[in-house]
Amino acid sequence: MTVKLPEFSDVVAAAARIGPHVIRTPVMRSAAFDARVNAQVFFKCENLQTGGAFKYRGAMNVLLQLDPARTPVVVTHSSGNHGNALALAARARGMRAIVVVPRDSARSKIAAIQSTGARVELCEPGLPAREKRLAEILATEPGELVHPFDDERIIAGQGTAALELLAEIPSLDAIGTPVGGGGLISGTALAAKAMRPAIRVIGAEPEQADDAFQSFRSGERRAVVAPKTIADGLRGSIGVRNFELLRRWVDDVVTVSEAQIVEAMRIVLTDFKLLIEPSSAVAVAAVLAAKLGRPGERVGLVISGGNIDLDVCPFLRGERL
Amino acid sequence: MTVKLPEFSDVVAAAARIGPHVIRTPVMRSAAFDARVNAQVFFKCENLQTGGAFKYRGAMNVLLQLDPARTPVVVTHSSGNHGNALALAARARGMRAIVVVPRDSARSKIAAIQSTGARVELCEPGLPAREKRLAEILATEPGELVHPFDDERIIAGQGTAALELLAEIPSLDAIGTPVGGGGLISGTALAAKAMRPAIRVIGAEPEQADDAFQSFRSGERRAVVAPKTIADGLRGSIGVRNFELLRRWVDDVVTVSEAQIVEAMRIVLTDFKLLIEPSSAVAVAAVLAAKLGRPGERVGLVISGGNIDLDVCPFLRGERL
Repeated sequence: MTVKLPEFSDVVAAAARIGPHVIRTPVMRSAAFDARVNAQVFFKCENLQTGGAFKYRGAMNVLLQLDPARTPVVVTHSSGNHGNALALAARARGMRAIVVVPRDSARSKIAAIQSTGARVELCEPGLPAREKRLAEILATEPGELVHPFDDERIIAGQGTAALELLAEIPSLDAIGTPVGGGGLISGTALAAKAMRPAIRVIGAEPEQADDAFQSFRSGERRAVVAPKTIADGLRGSIGVRNFELLRRWVDDVVTVSEAQIVEAMRIVLTDFKLLIEPSSAVAVAAVLAAKLGRPGERVGLVISGGNIDLDVCPFLRGERL
Repeated sequence: MTVKLPEFSDVVAAAARIGPHVIRTPVMRSAAFDARVNAQVFFKCENLQTGGAFKYRGAMNVLLQLDPARTPVVVTHSSGNHGNALALAARARGMRAIVVVPRDSARSKIAAIQSTGARVELCEPGLPAREKRLAEILATEPGELVHPFDDERIIAGQGTAALELLAEIPSLDAIGTPVGGGGLISGTALAAKAMRPAIRVIGAEPEQADDAFQSFRSGERRAVVAPKTIADGLRGSIGVRNFELLRRWVDDVVTVSEAQIVEAMRIVLTDFKLLIEPSSAVAVAAVLAAKLGRPGERVGLVISGGNIDLDVCPFLRGERL
């Protein structure tokens, strides 16, 4: 199968295109965190992006290339950050969004998507049911499918976070992101390797959803089925374009345990006073486990999102006064 | 007693002076929070400032007006954010800081100040012991006392947060901050009333430390002694300059309960994914209690800081996996 892969020039074009529409998120540091890991760590805080995740970058990069008069509807399947980001971006662009969501998704996530004015279409859990529902919708609606990660426009958009980080902190030795479908790591690698060829780009995954780790090691794209990890954003398997870019530009993929993910969330709350979602904590956990960055290095992390229900977090109990 | 009061031009000069040295903190919003309070609320996130609090602005504004060759030492008393901010600013300016800290302060706060290279001088609890120790130090060191709030340079520096907020969001109907010694509210009022005369400026206090509320209502400066509130940054009483400015420029001072403070912290963590310190939550609690801002209004809040030990927060238990 031949697919079109994005290039660094696409990331640069995306940055110019979405710049006026996205938040230039802050880069944060913590002396306490640096002391824990014996490195200088720079958090690019996409948890503070519109919609609470980097996903708004890719969604905006697609929608700004569509003419609302010709393509009034955009369609996707996602119960998480991509669905929410596409819904927000569609509203900003005066388009309608239809998001196919599995029936068993968290009610708070469905409500968040609906609150943007998007149409939520429930389907049975599992990829075949999702794809069938998508096909039915696209047969009757003048819409365009916007895939969550396996799309060159999405990848280029996600790469703009790393582009901003390296523009602000040029001298990074390594840069890391979590890996789910691979939109973020592939865009990050495209941007980082072009801007600073000597940089090491490292992806981090839960041990329980290590499809990219397995794919990277074996050289062929592998999938995981229904992985059990708290990192809900990383349960999908790596896409075709994403794996091609991972193979070309990423230096390593590492894994962390569920306990390490939760402990990383707790440490980020302690040191940065930021509550980040478990998927984001996966890359932080890799730094804490000395799998991402070496002593004394300057390490950049894209903190991918902050969307978590407080009652999902093991150290946040529901007590009220 | 005649004291020199700062003017708006001092805030403008401070902004130019400290601009290259401080973080231009992000202004954040949350659709979920806005829906709770039926208003548009803009958080000026000084919890993301250097040192985790707005205090770095005032400290930098003082130190940039001192010549390190002539004044190599700065001295203050504070176990909290001002001590930490002065220590950080002194390090950045190549000066030595001496911070007088009561013996019963939290060890984590003492450690934070020491980690900057500042000298910590322990004293007995209570204002007389503090002042005696300060006088002893100033008798032997070539130093300048930098008061935490009752200083026109400090007030002007703290006002730069509101100046940035109003430059970014000019159409605010009201702006609020917590009130401790009054450095933040008085600087905020100076900036806000000059930039937008129709704006209402409102201070928020814990019921348990309502000295500014009492002073504002009675027209004479009153103090509280050893108030019991979780908002550790607001336990001091309002200063002379601060009360003069409060009386001239502030429209109202309101109070909230301890339970409302903790609930506001929890709501900010839920909606913004930010852990803020109890003192900051006081102004948020006032908005939630409909005491700060009216339905449909655009309300700005200076989120003053994020320095809290996780084990102090009632809804953050210490469990680890």
